[in-house]
This record gives sequence, C-alpha cells and structure tokens, in this order.
Amino acid sequence: MIKVAISGLGNLGKYAIEAIESAPDMECIAVLRRKESLGTKPLDLRAVPDFDSIENAEAAVGKADVIIICEPSRSVPDTAAKYLAKGYHTVDSYDVHTGIVDLLDRLQPIAEKAGKAAIVSAGWDPGTDSALRAYFEAMAPIGATFTNFGRGRSMGHSVVARGIKGVKDAVSITIPIGGGAHSRLVYVELEQGESLATVKERIQADDYFSHDPLHVVEVDSVDAVADSSHGVLLERVGGFGSVSNQNLKFDMRINNPALTAQVLVSCARAAAKMPAGAHTLIDIPPVYLLAGERKALIKRLV
Amino acid sequence: MIKVAISGLGNLGKYAIEAIESAPDMECIAVLRRKESLGTKPLDLRAVPDFDSIENAEAAVGKADVIIICEPSRSVPDTAAKYLAKGYHTVDSYDVHTGIVDLLDRLQPIAEKAGKAAIVSAGWDPGTDSALRAYFEAMAPIGATFTNFGRGRSMGHSVVARGIKGVKDAVSITIPIGGGAHSRLVYVELEQGESLATVKERIQADDYFSHDPLHVVEVDSVDAVADSSHGVLLERVGGFGSVSNQNLKFDMRINNPALTAQVLVSCARAAAKMPAGAHTLIDIPPVYLLAGERKALIKRLV
Repeated sequence: MIKVAISGLGNLGKYAIEAIESAPDMECIAVLRRKESLGTKPLDLRAVPDFDSIENAEAAVGKADVIIICEPSRSVPDTAAKYLAKGYHTVDSYDVHTGIVDLLDRLQPIAEKAGKAAIVSAGWDPGTDSALRAYFEAMAPIGATFTNFGRGRSMGHSVVARGIKGVKDAVSITIPIGGGAHSRLVYVELEQGESLATVKERIQADDYFSHDPLHVVEVDSVDAVADSSHGVLLERVGGFGSVSNQNLKFDMRINNPALTAQVLVSCARAAAKMPAGAHTLIDIPPVYLLAGERKALIKRLV
Repeated sequence: MIKVAISGLGNLGKYAIEAIESAPDMECIAVLRRKESLGTKPLDLRAVPDFDSIENAEAAVGKADVIIICEPSRSVPDTAAKYLAKGYHTVDSYDVHTGIVDLLDRLQPIAEKAGKAAIVSAGWDPGTDSALRAYFEAMAPIGATFTNFGRGRSMGHSVVARGIKGVKDAVSITIPIGGGAHSRLVYVELEQGESLATVKERIQADDYFSHDPLHVVEVDSVDAVADSSHGVLLERVGGFGSVSNQNLKFDMRINNPALTAQVLVSCARAAAKMPAGAHTLIDIPPVYLLAGERKALIKRLV
C-alpha cells in the first residue's frame, strides 16, 4: 500500500481522500492543515487523522510515501519545495501555465538531492489535457490544436472578478466560442449603491477580461448559479506530407475539483516509479498512473 | 538526425517515408525489401534507396538507428527479433491484441542483450487508443470504457472474407452499433456461378463473423467501395467514491494506414530514449514521441 498524506482540506483535498479510499493500492494516512483548523470539517476528513505538520503526522501514524498538495497554486511552489527537501515525493496541481518551467527548474535540484520525485501540474489542464495535446501532435504533427474550455467556472477569473471594486461576490463562467476562443459570463452580487454598468466597465478593464467578449449579470446569490461542472473540447485537424484531414477530438464533461483530485491521486501512484526529479504529466508513462501489474494492464488496455 | 530504415513498402511503408520526410529530426536512409521487388514502386520510394538486407543497406548508406517494421502482423515477431538481435531499435504495429504480451516476452531478452529498445504495437489500436484508455482509467477509475470502431475497413475481417469459398474479392467494413459492439458490412465480388445467399451463410459461419450482425452486399468492384478512412469513438463514463458522471470521449476520423505510419514514426523517435527492452505505447512518456527539446515542449503543451 502506498501511504499518502494530503496537505490542505478544501474541495480538492476532500475529493483526494475519497479517490484514495477508492484505490486498491493506496491509503490516506494523514491530512496536514493549519493548527486552528484541526478537527474541523469532520465529514470531509472521513475519519483520516489531521495534523499541523508532517513531523507530527509521522510521529503519530508513520512516514508517508508521498504528499499530495491540495492548496491554491500560489502556495504550491513553497509547499512542494518544503516537503521534497524533507524527503517526500510530492504531487501538485499548479495551474499557472506560464510558471510551470520555472517551478520545474526550482524543484529539480531539491528533488534530486532528496532522491524523490515531484509531479508538477497534475490536474486536467495543465495535466491530462497536456498529455492529450502531445499525443495529438504525435498523431498529426502538422496542424492546429484548439483547446476549448467550458462551459464551466474559471477559478482564476472568479478570483479577479471578486476583487473588483463594487463587487460583493462573483463567479466567472468560461464559455467556448470556437477556435480556442472564449467569452466570459460573470455573475455578480453588487455592493450596496453600486451600478451594474460601472462594475461591468471595471471588470472589462481588467487584463483578465479585456481580451474576450464579456457579459455581466447581477444575481441575488452567486452560490445559486455556479456548480462544479466543467469541460473541455480538444480539437486537432492535421496530417503530414500528402496526408490531411486527420480529425482528432477529445470531449469531456466533468466535476472539476473531483477530476483534478483524481489525477493528483493517480500521479501520486506514479511518483514512486519515476526517477528523482521534477516531472509533468507528459514525462510520465501512462501505465504508471494505474493500479495493478504492468502485464495485466497491457493485456487489458493495449 | 535520427537515421531510420523501413522494412516493407506497402501502404504503411509508403506513408512512413512521407512522415519521416515531414519530421524535422529524422531521415529515412533505406527501405528494406525482397530482392525481387528492388527498384519497383519508385513513386512510393520517393528517392529513398532500397536494399534486400540491412547489411547491404549499412554497407551503402551507413547504420540506421532504428528500423520501422511495416510488414503484416504475422511476420512482425520474427522480423523484430531478427533486427533487434542485430543491434537495431525496432518499432512495429503488431495488432493481434491477444498476442502482445507474448511478443513482449519474446523480445524482452533479445532487446536487453542487444541494449536496444523494441516498441511493440505502435499503431492506433493497439497504440494511441491504448494510451487513451489508460488515461481514461486514471481519470475515472470506476466505470466502463467502450471502444467503438468505425465506420471503416477491418483488415483482419477482410482477409477472412476473401478466403471464404465462392468469394473472388471482399472487403469488410466495421460499423459501430453502440456500447462497443459492431456490425459487419461485407462487400463481395462472387466467383462465377456462386449464390450470394450461400456465400453469406459461409461468411456468417466463420468465427470472425458469427458473433456480430452481418450484411453482405454483392458489388462489381470491391476496389470502388473501400477507401482508407476509419475512426474510433472511445467513451468512458465513470468516477470514484461519491463522484459519478465523469464523461470522457475521444473521437477520431482518419486515414487508417497514414495514422498508423505516423504513430510508428513518432515511436521511432521515442525508441532511442527508452531503456533497453520491449515496450508498448503505455510504457512511453508522451514527451518522447515529439520532436524538440523537453522544456520547449512543456512550455507549449503543458
């Protein structure tokens, strides 16, 4: 059994515990949280003991093989570096596409020194979508891939919208409009006395929103309009030489944090099989992601 | 530049030459064929020199890094074993699903001894579909995957239909009827004096056809009805724990031998990066399939 500790108990952490319970070859031995949170959210903990440090966890329940970091992207780099240096494999879902290579560069020497693997950006995009984009290019090297997100809630855009002056709460829905382009539908609760037109102008002016068509709708309750459903349509038409019109499509409709958590857990399984160093999904042989013996998997899947 | 030799110049070999010409990091230095075929099909050869043995090719154009085996599945095991033993990486598209583990077992010690890699079953099914099935399970471990082939020509079924008494020529089209099940549409040219009803009974009686709905249609020319278009719809609905309705779909419509050849060529690139031994698509990190430097690929694809 692979012993897993989870750092953070938000939506991701909660689903990660469930995914580990579902896995035949893993057990969740600890949840790591801030001291003031300990013992709260007992239903989300599902009877897993929680600790305020990996040292306290180890003293009580033994050493974890891998730590799954279920924290916001901004805290992932420091957290991953810390646990790696202490001698644990780490897995994270760092989702800042432009920062991934920097994060790999930062974690690589720490991972090598510790003799451990860091699996970086293990979600669905970045993550499994990245692997699919790689296969699509391997199958039709000349051509164009479009990644059409949604319809679904964008965490990043929602955070920015919530920070706009006059906005009490907000959620931003990403809507694909074809060719890898998107419009934004922002549901807002306004602060007392604010006008929708003014708030819309402020949202539109932000760099996160200024490049896309924008709709802003006032609602009484943001919580009532945004569930966790999301999706993506990856499309590639391409070929090579005299060959064209090779049509490849991947379409998924999913519970967003649940899928991210499951990919994290599958990658936790892979971590122990990878060489020391920092890796992404496209560096991992797919067979490492699955429970079971290699030849049985080949018999069933290949 | 990765130096590639191609063994066999049928549809697959012809497209493989084109795919290599399209690749920025590879060159096709030789085609290996039977002595009596040398110099024929000059358009398919595209100015690549052909030889009747790898030794003669090496004497004339130098040593290839990898040999892509573009031969029928029945001859793949012996051909792969031969070239591996002579010290070449090999790539094949062996498509007998039930024989893959046996082939890996046969090639593994030869590959290890030679210090070379054999990439086995590098087409689209087995091949890239296999990798996708692995990701689908990693994303939604509890659930069912359906592989719906077609509409397109089945090489295996066509060969069997052609061998039926009373059939002059035949082609068998696979038609998906949902849930991973298929019907067979067989176009036949009959021998003089044969009845369609009798031939249909004979086809239906063969184990290749007896399990599926069958339609047999008489045509004047089989060549006029069967091009190389094919496709697959991979579907999985699943989840884990309390999570269900994770919907994953991969749908492709492609030129069949062209895609198989391209996957062979992308895997030829991977062969040099894999450890000595026999591997399938699910054993290969996706990044190995692509031309270019790893971090640039991560920046672009992850």
